Amino acid sequence: METSHPGNIGAAARAMKNMGLSHLRLVKPKIFPHADATSRAAGAADVLSGAKVFESLADAVADCQVVIGASARDRTISWPELTPRECAEKFTREQYQSVSIALVFGRENSGLKNEELDRCQYLLRIPCNPQFSSLNLAAAVQVVCYELFMAADKQQSPQNSDELQEPLATAEQMEGFYLHLQQALGDIGFLHADKSRSIMRRLRRIYNRIELESKEVDILRGILRFSQHHNGK
Amino acid sequence: METSHPGNIGAAARAMKNMGLSHLRLVKPKIFPHADATSRAAGAADVLSGAKVFESLADAVADCQVVIGASARDRTISWPELTPRECAEKFTREQYQSVSIALVFGRENSGLKNEELDRCQYLLRIPCNPQFSSLNLAAAVQVVCYELFMAADKQQSPQNSDELQEPLATAEQMEGFYLHLQQALGDIGFLHADKSRSIMRRLRRIYNRIELESKEVDILRGILRFSQHHNGK
Repeated sequence: METSHPGNIGAAARAMKNMGLSHLRLVKPKIFPHADATSRAAGAADVLSGAKVFESLADAVADCQVVIGASARDRTISWPELTPRECAEKFTREQYQSVSIALVFGRENSGLKNEELDRCQYLLRIPCNPQFSSLNLAAAVQVVCYELFMAADKQQSPQNSDELQEPLATAEQMEGFYLHLQQALGDIGFLHADKSRSIMRRLRRIYNRIELESKEVDILRGILRFSQHHNGK
Repeated sequence: METSHPGNIGAAARAMKNMGLSHLRLVKPKIFPHADATSRAAGAADVLSGAKVFESLADAVADCQVVIGASARDRTISWPELTPRECAEKFTREQYQSVSIALVFGRENSGLKNEELDRCQYLLRIPCNPQFSSLNLAAAVQVVCYELFMAADKQQSPQNSDELQEPLATAEQMEGFYLHLQQALGDIGFLHADKSRSIMRRLRRIYNRIELESKEVDILRGILRFSQHHNGK
């Protein structure tokens, strides 16, 4: 998200390739492309040249089914938190093999905003010295990619893979759901304008935790439609 | 060892402090101090200003009891290898609490030389993409320090700490021992000049694996003295 230093983008690309990852998406980078990015990427020029640039986080994660936001700050609302190891162990499991997962890293100085974290199902927090907890952006990317590599390495011997998994909802579907939910809650008189933000945040926290399947979102939205229709009469 | 880019020194200092480490030693850095080091260190200026500069690896690790060399390259001789996780789990255990441990990182482009690895009891290898295995220096430091922090966190509940541990030999003591060994082997006619390097390397591999206690080195050197004395007559 809005990376200030192009060197950090290059270093992040290198860290990704070192650990076997390649899909880099940049949301409104301050300066990109840039010689510093290219030089710090070293042998990962392919990751850098393949990077896609987006105008908003919503666009960048639209097709992703799981969105995880890296965060060093304590938040007022307690979001479901994962360490990089927990995150890696969870999402390298068989059932996530065809799931698109976004790891979102914030700005160098200010991280992710609350509105951006609202789009995340999980917070990712790197355990570190509480007296000096701000990792360099590329260093944070390195730690997380390393844990993914370690976990993927471990998972190479597949276990019980015969349970058929329904496709999870994408971030775009979830946003559509939350918009619908908010409208519906407004329509039925549950949401008052002054409290709607904090209530919606709490609701997101609930639904984000579930990792809804695409079909389940359809069902929920069906319910919302019914509730809206009923009250409109 | 002979770091080329001062920025990497600063970034390494930051990575260390993020993970609660502070003792930085530099062997013949190409450019240091430097503004790039200071800027990349961010809030870890104290680690940077506390860094000690040495003229040789031998001097830098003289008072260390365990020396571990980070290496990405395959070596012709197979040294005992640890992953960062294995390394962290081993050396954060109770019995190493008062042991000085050096983690040695090589040059950005060429890593550690064989003569430098000879001074290491272990090789540390970071698991990664075999097609692109060269991590940035500070990124490698970050991964290793992160694993140390993770393991130390886990170890905080002490288990059976009542076994008294003898102090391990320092690197200086071990070098004294190897020098003595080589002389003694020469004296007794075992070592021929043309093969002494490769034989000494194999011997180091044996003794380095044991993690000799200080007292044990005294005993071994006693034996060497006797063997020299005996043959001298």
